[in-house]
Amino acid sequence: MSEVYAVRRERVRERCAAGGGGAALVSRPANVRYLAGAAPDGAVLLVGRGEDEDVLVCGRPLGGEPGEGRADGGLRVQVLTEPSADPAVAGADFATAQGVDALAVEEHHLTVARHRAVGSVAPRLRLMDLGTAVEQLRLVKDEEELSCLRVAAEIADQALGELLESILVGRTERHLALELERRLVDHGADGPAFATSVGTGPNSGRGGHRPTDRRVEEGDFLSVCLGASYRGYRCEIGRTFVIGTSPADWQIELYDVVFAAQRAGREALAPGAACRDVDRAARHVLHSAGHAEGLAPSTGHGVGLEIDEDPQLAPAAMGKLDVCVPVTVEPGVHLPGRGGVRIDDTLVVRPEADGGPELLTITTKELLAL
Amino acid sequence: MSEVYAVRRERVRERCAAGGGGAALVSRPANVRYLAGAAPDGAVLLVGRGEDEDVLVCGRPLGGEPGEGRADGGLRVQVLTEPSADPAVAGADFATAQGVDALAVEEHHLTVARHRAVGSVAPRLRLMDLGTAVEQLRLVKDEEELSCLRVAAEIADQALGELLESILVGRTERHLALELERRLVDHGADGPAFATSVGTGPNSGRGGHRPTDRRVEEGDFLSVCLGASYRGYRCEIGRTFVIGTSPADWQIELYDVVFAAQRAGREALAPGAACRDVDRAARHVLHSAGHAEGLAPSTGHGVGLEIDEDPQLAPAAMGKLDVCVPVTVEPGVHLPGRGGVRIDDTLVVRPEADGGPELLTITTKELLAL
Repeated sequence: MSEVYAVRRERVRERCAAGGGGAALVSRPANVRYLAGAAPDGAVLLVGRGEDEDVLVCGRPLGGEPGEGRADGGLRVQVLTEPSADPAVAGADFATAQGVDALAVEEHHLTVARHRAVGSVAPRLRLMDLGTAVEQLRLVKDEEELSCLRVAAEIADQALGELLESILVGRTERHLALELERRLVDHGADGPAFATSVGTGPNSGRGGHRPTDRRVEEGDFLSVCLGASYRGYRCEIGRTFVIGTSPADWQIELYDVVFAAQRAGREALAPGAACRDVDRAARHVLHSAGHAEGLAPSTGHGVGLEIDEDPQLAPAAMGKLDVCVPVTVEPGVHLPGRGGVRIDDTLVVRPEADGGPELLTITTKELLAL
Repeated sequence: MSEVYAVRRERVRERCAAGGGGAALVSRPANVRYLAGAAPDGAVLLVGRGEDEDVLVCGRPLGGEPGEGRADGGLRVQVLTEPSADPAVAGADFATAQGVDALAVEEHHLTVARHRAVGSVAPRLRLMDLGTAVEQLRLVKDEEELSCLRVAAEIADQALGELLESILVGRTERHLALELERRLVDHGADGPAFATSVGTGPNSGRGGHRPTDRRVEEGDFLSVCLGASYRGYRCEIGRTFVIGTSPADWQIELYDVVFAAQRAGREALAPGAACRDVDRAARHVLHSAGHAEGLAPSTGHGVGLEIDEDPQLAPAAMGKLDVCVPVTVEPGVHLPGRGGVRIDDTLVVRPEADGGPELLTITTKELLAL
């Protein structure tokens, strides 16, 4: 496995060579983890001009004892002695010591102050912008990554399934969210992939709703959005249920509309499909049903080492989908004061010949009355 | 209460006037919350030249419906229409519209890319550095803030106390951590102030230890570090226990040393005391007992809207303590392969005349055998 990281760093190296040579200083944690296999708090990765020049620079105390060591695959690891030292600055020092004259940094992650500090320790070093080069490499997942996502999705399905078997009426959104997160860990997750969202009654169907002390009542919509992180890979599932034996007509109608929109989005997932077209497919269904107001700005997004990464499935999104890109499809409608519906799956883009998109989150999407 | 925020913004305004005029663009979430009373994801606060020019700029979707509104105390709130728009860029636009010529930004928080974007929308705007001006204002807490910290500490004490009454042997670090976090919420916390740390046996006494699947065994040291967040204010408590009826001699000796170090640190807390002297007081005890290796780089830190804020209690720390500054005192010793002890309290610096430091986390520090 550790070889994988060396290969990924090689691709960054090629990118640097193409961009006029020099080394790259990777500071965004998910990018460091992707290229080094680990990302202790605040660690930065120097991708030198040759593999033997790569260094993972860690601060203390989380970085362990000071000094030099080796990670899997022989990557050099340097833990700084001075606790307050900035690994990015130390990384620039290493680059200078290696005789590098140009250093590409992640200007979308490095703060102005840290960037200045890096520049001042190495005045002869030409600082360039690596841009989102590493994020671009992360878009298409390999089999190892996809299998982590599959496990993550399975864990989320299990946690959700168990919740559905328990009594819900009378319990608060907060407690349901906490129970889900405990179950995620019970089933082997590193932890929740993001803050679990549970919304009941008027709070149902709101994207990113933070759980409150409102209790589940008969006749409520209950919408739940959770995800597991497994070996750093994060999935997402969202479902909406109705509490009590008989859903109201407006609930059935609203559910059907969102379900149709979500299916349209899923069916639009294909290699080469424009991201904005996937969004349009789902959004169109909601619009034609008269739900144009207050829709979320996007219908879905990529997942991986971060829960919200590229590609974005949104009206203004550029770019097309590739094979082996995992994305969420999560349209929702929220009616102020009444509540709403949100249905969210994680899928992997696959060619038609392979049976089309691979659904990772398999919990039923029928409207369950609990 | 909302008046408080206006007063705080006024102090930033004075600072800007002193610094050559212009407006300030505050982007660090804790700073935004401190000055606006709320900090929706990604929101930035423009502190204009007059109170009526202050604007809280929120992105979507978490920022709610697009358009203009008012927060408590009449603060203008602007929710952006374009979801992908950067509130910092929009804030700079507002500043330009207000005829401001200089804008102080938080260079220690704003990324290079966002800083460039801000500069490019308002080329005639002179961008300056606000530095840590707002963090400095946050150092000394007012009564309202201290009462939130007291409640947070009380919640953490309750959660910890309940855990001690339950059976511990055979349970994993992860599950104990999750149970503690559930109890924090049960008792009214917004949530954990930070990831709860539970370490048993060889993992005990390690600062920032991430809970594993190791189970508690007879004869283990068990160290726990948790905190509650209450209305955004975060406290911290850490304790170490021994599992079983009779602690080993080395455990008693080690506990006594760390306890003495922690007491020395607490007793060194006084208005006007140098931060490094508080660290030295605790560190000296550990050193003289022969524990110089692998100590954490600091003995404690400030707490408030962030769990780790200024002041730092560390050997190289500058500055002195003020009245009404809450800090942690948390020395620890970890013996590789055997485990260790960590004792952590949150206290508020008070003058001798008022009885000295106010201890917020009151759980006993006797060595309990559970």
